[in-house]
Parts: sequence; C-alpha cells; structure tokens
Amino acid sequence: MRLLLATRNKKKLVELRRVLAEAASDVELVGLDDVDEYPESPETGLTFEDNALLKAREAVQFTRLPSIADDSGLAVDALNGMPGVFSARWSGLPSGTPNRDEANLNLVLAQVADVPDEHLGAAFVCAAALVWPDGRELVVRGEMRGHLIRAPRGDGGFGYDPIFVADGHDRTTAELTPAEKDAISHRGIAFRALAEHL
Amino acid sequence: MRLLLATRNKKKLVELRRVLAEAASDVELVGLDDVDEYPESPETGLTFEDNALLKAREAVQFTRLPSIADDSGLAVDALNGMPGVFSARWSGLPSGTPNRDEANLNLVLAQVADVPDEHLGAAFVCAAALVWPDGRELVVRGEMRGHLIRAPRGDGGFGYDPIFVADGHDRTTAELTPAEKDAISHRGIAFRALAEHL
Repeated sequence: MRLLLATRNKKKLVELRRVLAEAASDVELVGLDDVDEYPESPETGLTFEDNALLKAREAVQFTRLPSIADDSGLAVDALNGMPGVFSARWSGLPSGTPNRDEANLNLVLAQVADVPDEHLGAAFVCAAALVWPDGRELVVRGEMRGHLIRAPRGDGGFGYDPIFVADGHDRTTAELTPAEKDAISHRGIAFRALAEHL
Repeated sequence: MRLLLATRNKKKLVELRRVLAEAASDVELVGLDDVDEYPESPETGLTFEDNALLKAREAVQFTRLPSIADDSGLAVDALNGMPGVFSARWSGLPSGTPNRDEANLNLVLAQVADVPDEHLGAAFVCAAALVWPDGRELVVRGEMRGHLIRAPRGDGGFGYDPIFVADGHDRTTAELTPAEKDAISHRGIAFRALAEHL
C-alpha cells in the first residue's frame, strides 16, 4: 500500500518509516517531495488537531492516496500553551530564514525570563491525522511532558529541543540519542498510535 | 489622604488623578518618582491579578501608604490570552529599549499573520489592586473587548493601541481621543471600580 506523509521534512519521513517498519511492513511511505506541483496552503488552524486534519485532507484531495499529516509544537504552561500551533513562526521570521529555530527558542527564553523555575512546565505536543480517500478520518495526540531550562544545551534534535527536559530525564531532548527521543517523543507516540490503524 | 500609585508611568498617574478627581476629591495621589530609593522587583506573577497585588503589597511595605498598583496587557484569543502578563516584554527586548512597543506589536502581527480575520478577537485587560496598611486588599479587573487589525493606525495611546479596535468602534484605540479612550478603557474601568472604595 502507498501512503503519503504530507511533509517535506526528511527527518519526519525517516521517523515515520521507522515506526511503520515495526507496525505495518507492507506500507510504502512517500513524502511531498515525491509529488509533483503540490499546492502549499498556510496553516490557519488554531489547534494542532485542526492543522493536522486540514493538511491530511488537502493531501488526499490532491493525491487520492491515504495520507498522514502532523502538526507539532511546544506548549509552555506559563504562556497558556503557546507557542503552540505558532511554534515554527513564533519569532515572526518567515519560513526559510537562517537560524529561525534559534530565534524562536531565544524569544521563548526571554519571555519566561522572570517566570520562577517552578512554573517552567511545558510539553511537546503532536497531533497526527490519517485521512483515507473514502472519507474516513482519524486524529491522535501525543504529548511529552517536561520543563524548560534557562539556556540551550545539546546539538541533536531541532526546534525547541535544546531548552526542553522531558520528565524523568536530566538531558535535554537535544542531548538524547534519536532512539531515546523516539521512544518518548510526542511524535513517536502519535505516529505509533496511527500505525496501529493501518 | 495620601495614596500611592505604584508606577513611574506619568500617563497612568494622570489617568488615575482624573478618575479620582471625580470619585474621591480629598485624595492626594503620589507616584514612585516621589518615593526615594524605591526597590524595584521583577513581575513574577502569572496573572494580572497576581502582579497587581504583588506590586501593591510591596508599595505598602515600603511606604506605609495605602497603595494602588495595576497590571495590564493585551489578551489575544488566538494566542490563548497571550501576550497577557508578558505584554511589555513580548519581543524579549529589555525595558528601556527604544521602539520596544513597536517591536512587541509587530511580533504579535507576525504571529497572527495566518490567523483568519474572524479569529482576531482580543481584549485589553487591567487588574488593579488596592492594599491598605492594615492588610485589607481589593483587586478588580477591567476589560475592553475588540479585535486586532493587520497594520498599525494612529499616533495616540501606547503599546498595542495602534492595532486594536474596541467593539462598537471603527478607529483604533490609538485614534481615539484620551477622553474617548478613558470612557471605555480597561484601566479606566478598573480605576473607577477601585475609586468607589476610597
């Protein structure tokens, strides 16, 4: 079976392929780079679930393949769950700007600079949607709880990983190995939950 | 009676004096610039009410005068009520940075750039606390509902005024006269509510 993951992010493709290899070995996963002239739409949803569903539905409409899309982000308790769906564009810099991840991360650190340590709780959240050409839809949510630290640590991962320490760990998610991160990550949780339905 | 307003913001002093002149004419209002060696503390609260109370209590401890303090900000629906208590430092720039208001405002506009118009609801919120040397405390909240526009308009007011249009108005709060703004503003509502208790 061919299945589309509506992303151009190669790391996400690799991650989902790894999960699918365990859960549903007869699936051939393709990404948007394998689809000609795919029309990009802005992410206008106000929840992770909305955005994941919007992206998966668009992918099905265009490709007629069963399609998975995810939307992920960092939810900081003291910021009422923000940056949330705005995580990638939190600093206002346009997509493709060099060091955008770093600008986003530094902005969050500055915003919580006066917040006491005990209120630095946060979670990485991922909503993943699976939409079939016959109209069936499924959305799942994965969360990884933890807290922010005051200064970045680690070279792995991406986005806000260098300032996030998952519950039960001492290292940031940028200091975990890919396998360690997969095992506990919001996206790993959500992708595994979806894979069970393939 | 001498009363302290725990602020160095002259516009707030003028605004509260105007409200008090109508409500409680025997009050002499002083600001922090009239108090020698006043110790500044960071605003560590996570709600407007917390911050207003913290500031008013500190003012009473230091001056032994009945003291009013307020904390105000912009609460954008699509940002889960943020910038909220972080309104003044939303862009991460330190206090005193030239054009900080403009940087904050431009950041909010960039963050909501993809949010559909019908989800641009917002409110200006003010919590005002009155604390007496004998320990009595009162906190009130004033709100002005409205919506954001996509580009700043108007030279009056300050902060996020140029991108906020109050319900029932066409002009931004930066385009209203001071008297028009006082009549509907979050701070005007909160200060008038407090003045009734003096």
